[in-house]
Amino acid sequence: MPLTFSNRGYRMPSSPIRKLTPYATEAKNRGVKIYHLNIGQPDLPTPQKALDALRNIDRKTLEYSPSQGYLSLRERLAGYYGRFGVSLSPDDIIVTTGGSEAVLLTFMACLNPGDEIIVPEPAYANYMSFAVTAGAVVRTVSAKIEDGFALPPVEEIEKLIGPRTKAILICNPSNPTGYIYTEEEMEKIRKIVLKHDLFLFSDEVYREFNFSGRPYVSALHLKSIEENVVLIDSVSKRYSECGIRIGAIVTRNAELRSIVMKYCQARLSPPLLGQIVAEASIDGTEDYAKECFDEYKARRDFFIEGLNKIPGVYSPMPQGAFYTVASLPVEDAEDFCKWCLTDFVYNDGTQEGCIGETIMMAPAAGFYSTPGSGRNQARLAYVLKQEDLARALLVLEKALEAYNAR
Amino acid sequence: MPLTFSNRGYRMPSSPIRKLTPYATEAKNRGVKIYHLNIGQPDLPTPQKALDALRNIDRKTLEYSPSQGYLSLRERLAGYYGRFGVSLSPDDIIVTTGGSEAVLLTFMACLNPGDEIIVPEPAYANYMSFAVTAGAVVRTVSAKIEDGFALPPVEEIEKLIGPRTKAILICNPSNPTGYIYTEEEMEKIRKIVLKHDLFLFSDEVYREFNFSGRPYVSALHLKSIEENVVLIDSVSKRYSECGIRIGAIVTRNAELRSIVMKYCQARLSPPLLGQIVAEASIDGTEDYAKECFDEYKARRDFFIEGLNKIPGVYSPMPQGAFYTVASLPVEDAEDFCKWCLTDFVYNDGTQEGCIGETIMMAPAAGFYSTPGSGRNQARLAYVLKQEDLARALLVLEKALEAYNAR
Repeated sequence: MPLTFSNRGYRMPSSPIRKLTPYATEAKNRGVKIYHLNIGQPDLPTPQKALDALRNIDRKTLEYSPSQGYLSLRERLAGYYGRFGVSLSPDDIIVTTGGSEAVLLTFMACLNPGDEIIVPEPAYANYMSFAVTAGAVVRTVSAKIEDGFALPPVEEIEKLIGPRTKAILICNPSNPTGYIYTEEEMEKIRKIVLKHDLFLFSDEVYREFNFSGRPYVSALHLKSIEENVVLIDSVSKRYSECGIRIGAIVTRNAELRSIVMKYCQARLSPPLLGQIVAEASIDGTEDYAKECFDEYKARRDFFIEGLNKIPGVYSPMPQGAFYTVASLPVEDAEDFCKWCLTDFVYNDGTQEGCIGETIMMAPAAGFYSTPGSGRNQARLAYVLKQEDLARALLVLEKALEAYNAR
Repeated sequence: MPLTFSNRGYRMPSSPIRKLTPYATEAKNRGVKIYHLNIGQPDLPTPQKALDALRNIDRKTLEYSPSQGYLSLRERLAGYYGRFGVSLSPDDIIVTTGGSEAVLLTFMACLNPGDEIIVPEPAYANYMSFAVTAGAVVRTVSAKIEDGFALPPVEEIEKLIGPRTKAILICNPSNPTGYIYTEEEMEKIRKIVLKHDLFLFSDEVYREFNFSGRPYVSALHLKSIEENVVLIDSVSKRYSECGIRIGAIVTRNAELRSIVMKYCQARLSPPLLGQIVAEASIDGTEDYAKECFDEYKARRDFFIEGLNKIPGVYSPMPQGAFYTVASLPVEDAEDFCKWCLTDFVYNDGTQEGCIGETIMMAPAAGFYSTPGSGRNQARLAYVLKQEDLARALLVLEKALEAYNAR
């Protein structure tokens, strides 16, 4: 049957992690215990207050919510941003179905097919998918592992700016690198945005996990580019509630909001139940936030130190989020990551109920657009408890030894 | 600031109902009681079993679900379709964030910018929004109120088929007309699809509300076009749970599913909580379904009879869903619908706590692409209890008298 699909459909990238999933499933079925360093699914509990709100829902009909999201949730979110010194009205906020929809609708509203966005790489792989969906073109500047993935030189960014350049997209703190832009770097970004009158799309979903000791600089703090800034947000990571699919587009640009709202009306409403959970998560969860912060910070310190002790492995110290991109003593990390699932198993007799252990990691090549970049790197998420992280580090060391001794 | 947005963004249609919303808000603020005949938000309760499942969620972390949706939900859905004589595997089903995402991802996966879809009009207005999002072009064939909105002649459909035609889109039972295609009409559609090798996108979210007495013919029943058919579904209407945002793409075309899955992976997962509610709604709710069916059927009989008694009003008898498109004795229904909110109020002294009553309806022009079509028509939803429908009919009659006596 000669039915054909959209070229865009054929061009949609496959997730770099999903390619490994069948191998992981096979390994699991063989009885291998896998330490998942590959995903950003926090293992910490959702705040009890949010779970209670869910249990206490007293509605007879689970009806549509407003397309912009409940006002009560947007009021709480405005209050939340206020804690970071960002003054907003609930009208500046549009509730979306996860940060994912926030990225998609921002692209759809701002970018014509063929328009270009400049993104420092390595970058969150799904930006590419949403760009393909919108017909936009991602152009990347490479952040270097030896610089700890700091902002690439401004000149390199400016070199890419042309007549089709519409926006700069940053993820701060960064998934996948954990880097957080300094005040000076944010000032550099501000100046380019102002000079060329670009949009600044700023994905700040990991804002709560800032271990740098420096105050957090949001794109919404930047002066004179208020109309240019679009904040992409999500409650998923900060309250360990990825499944509720609640995010937000935050912008002081009223025209942009009115265009985004047309898309929001077409999809009717963001999830009702998620909004109830999100709203309950925002206030009165300060202790929870502190505990999560301390836990992730302790894990980071432990994990990065351990990584750097493995011969040939190098990881910069990530300042935020819960990922790092590390270089491994292998030529092709994609091959190594696959091999860990298909050909390797570690068994020192201490783990019961399995035939041995291995690790799953995300090959970093999937986070780069430049061919060949990041070939020896992998993204590792430290969303496991320390005891498991310790085992994962041991297993990684043994896997590298075995892989290089083949 | 010369920031510009996507042309697509500017072209996104505004919802025909949303334009009236500010007038409705003002009327409400003045103390007017409004009967909402404009929206498809069922007033019936969500099944108790589903509400109980929500209350009994016993998870510590509200984590991501699989991008395709939980297998347990897809198994239940496969069983559900089985009741209609449609044999499917859970693999044929992709869970989406409402029927809305199902439409969007189907368009994205199948249609290139410039590709054309043929849609009988009047049609659900948001199809147009999703087409604009995907860059696709909607071409319409007009169903006529005097034919009860039956399928337009096949020749008219074939006249529109050209080199860019990729798909036919039907909504069956229809929102906005309530029409249900007969077996003969489905056979005609099947033949065109087969002859020209088109996709058939079939939105069947109102399947449960079939008052025709005839067995329901799904696009999935049609032979020899199994690879062409994409079913758009949603649990919103059949279980009165629009807010949970759970829908589905159902297709036996494996290549299409693999492309859709790339989009699904980019947006990570459909709502977790909604899936739990949906899963609990499917089985063991037969009594609930029967009650809803009986209630809507009784409302339809009552409402359509009442409508046709109003001088100058004509509504065909809708065979399904819970809408009708009626012609009104006015030149411009859009103006009349607005006038009902801004200039009219009915007070016969029987309604306490308000300064009077009015009605809100959706002007049907928003459901047509052909300029000038449906100008004297409005879509009316009968999702109110009979007592309120009776008042709404009285108020509509009085409003028409007053409007035409100006």
